[in-house]
Amino acid sequence: MTALANNPYQSRIDAEETIAPRLDPVVYATSSAKLPADEERVRSYEHNGFVVLDDMFSEREVEYFQREAERLRCDRMLAKREETIVEPESSEIRSIFNVPQFSPIFQRLVHDTRLVGWARYLLNDDVYLHQSRLNFKPGFAGKEFYWHSDFETWHVEDGMPRMRAVSMSIALTDNKPSNGSVMLIPGSHRHYVSCGGVTPENHYRQSLRRQEYGVPSRAGLEQLAEGNEIAVSTGRAGSVLLFDCNTMHGSAGNITPYPRTNLFFVFNAMSNRLAAPASGQKPRPEFIARRRNIQSIEPIGYQADDYRQ
Amino acid sequence: MTALANNPYQSRIDAEETIAPRLDPVVYATSSAKLPADEERVRSYEHNGFVVLDDMFSEREVEYFQREAERLRCDRMLAKREETIVEPESSEIRSIFNVPQFSPIFQRLVHDTRLVGWARYLLNDDVYLHQSRLNFKPGFAGKEFYWHSDFETWHVEDGMPRMRAVSMSIALTDNKPSNGSVMLIPGSHRHYVSCGGVTPENHYRQSLRRQEYGVPSRAGLEQLAEGNEIAVSTGRAGSVLLFDCNTMHGSAGNITPYPRTNLFFVFNAMSNRLAAPASGQKPRPEFIARRRNIQSIEPIGYQADDYRQ
Repeated sequence: MTALANNPYQSRIDAEETIAPRLDPVVYATSSAKLPADEERVRSYEHNGFVVLDDMFSEREVEYFQREAERLRCDRMLAKREETIVEPESSEIRSIFNVPQFSPIFQRLVHDTRLVGWARYLLNDDVYLHQSRLNFKPGFAGKEFYWHSDFETWHVEDGMPRMRAVSMSIALTDNKPSNGSVMLIPGSHRHYVSCGGVTPENHYRQSLRRQEYGVPSRAGLEQLAEGNEIAVSTGRAGSVLLFDCNTMHGSAGNITPYPRTNLFFVFNAMSNRLAAPASGQKPRPEFIARRRNIQSIEPIGYQADDYRQ
Repeated sequence: MTALANNPYQSRIDAEETIAPRLDPVVYATSSAKLPADEERVRSYEHNGFVVLDDMFSEREVEYFQREAERLRCDRMLAKREETIVEPESSEIRSIFNVPQFSPIFQRLVHDTRLVGWARYLLNDDVYLHQSRLNFKPGFAGKEFYWHSDFETWHVEDGMPRMRAVSMSIALTDNKPSNGSVMLIPGSHRHYVSCGGVTPENHYRQSLRRQEYGVPSRAGLEQLAEGNEIAVSTGRAGSVLLFDCNTMHGSAGNITPYPRTNLFFVFNAMSNRLAAPASGQKPRPEFIARRRNIQSIEPIGYQADDYRQ
């Protein structure tokens, strides 16, 4: 594991916040690559930093996924594992990391051509699963998540070298305007916010519950949102939000009775595997940032009843 | 001041929560009354418990209102008064009560035929201003407000006898899906949630910041929302949300850079003036619930430049 040479994305080095242009492509595909879907969606992803695909999975498949998520949420053994994060002010489960490890169904889903095809196209490389989790935002008491770029954290705390990863959030309940759906700042992926402050050691268990480091300033957020109306990403259960690793996003709390459950996969380019964390600190656990036993994911053409279990 | 005889809307009497049908009309107007606007909007208000009117004020008027709200927000003397409520975890101003007392412009607005006409029509009576306030939900740090029926509080803590009051929330900034806009449960105004627990004395200063009593249960909220998709009330600056005093509503926090400022007037029917609080406790202050020097509001046909100051 080597440290990053000539790091262009320094952050949390106890300097003032700066906002610099992104140095990497957003869509890596060359013009001859085969499009996974219509070009308009790819252009929207490139321009805004995200796109919602609402026709990827059938109702039947979504039901299988929902049943599996519910099984995991109720698994008492799982609740005690370090992969499971609970809400700060209650004991409700907020996230389960490394989901495929606990679920043959979601293990299959990681390989599904419909997802991996998009990842391979956008990143123009073989891909692997950098991180995965099930996010539960319970009704009535789901807490907000403040603005952040995932890449900033992955770079500083995990040593992800460049912006060549794509996140996919698969809605397992309807994501409504009312129930704390993900909000994104369109175009923010084309800027890199180098945050002030430094990160304490072993910060991760706290930060997964409440972000305190790698947080952009109010002035920085205003600058990013200037002329870019913040989008609330809504979609029915089964819709998939694709977003670039550097898109600034967050979400409000959820006081409605509607729980909001999303399955979250991050595909990283094989050429973009983790180096030593830019912070110089020891790496976070494997279930948060994979660096061992990495294998390229072969796409498999699963169909609905392959998910029946 | 007499107590309520044969109180049909008991609540917080240390019993279990119950949900009972509303006993009062929603629209009191008789068929011969002159409609303030098209019938469709009145029917929508009657059916859902709220309606948004987006064409009431001109851009110029809205600018005058915005400038006046900003003047009040920055008034240092006002910040120290008891009418001013600050955010629990910062010192930012959340609400200024009894606004017309501090503002000749908003004093005029209370009398504006466009507002009072609607109130008189819906309540079919002379009306007066029961409560008024400016609500600031600042960007980045605006806190959520949990579900409540205003009438339940006004009945228990202020002695409002029946459901014969209408609230008007005038947007002074754009109310977006992203910035913590008011959410309402359609049809909830046709049910009365009698809440469990009792209210401590002098509870009001705390409750204006964070609600703890008069809070419906999760099961109760689920019942109200069953088959009634929760609405997020959005509208450009200048739009007016009219909602029945018993409509269940709340709002999420605001992490966006967009502040959300609303001017809030509550018109009550003259025949529905306050009795002694149903709780038996001493009344809350006049700036929260008016009971002295009440006069019927005469509608005045103001026009844009009447608000120039």
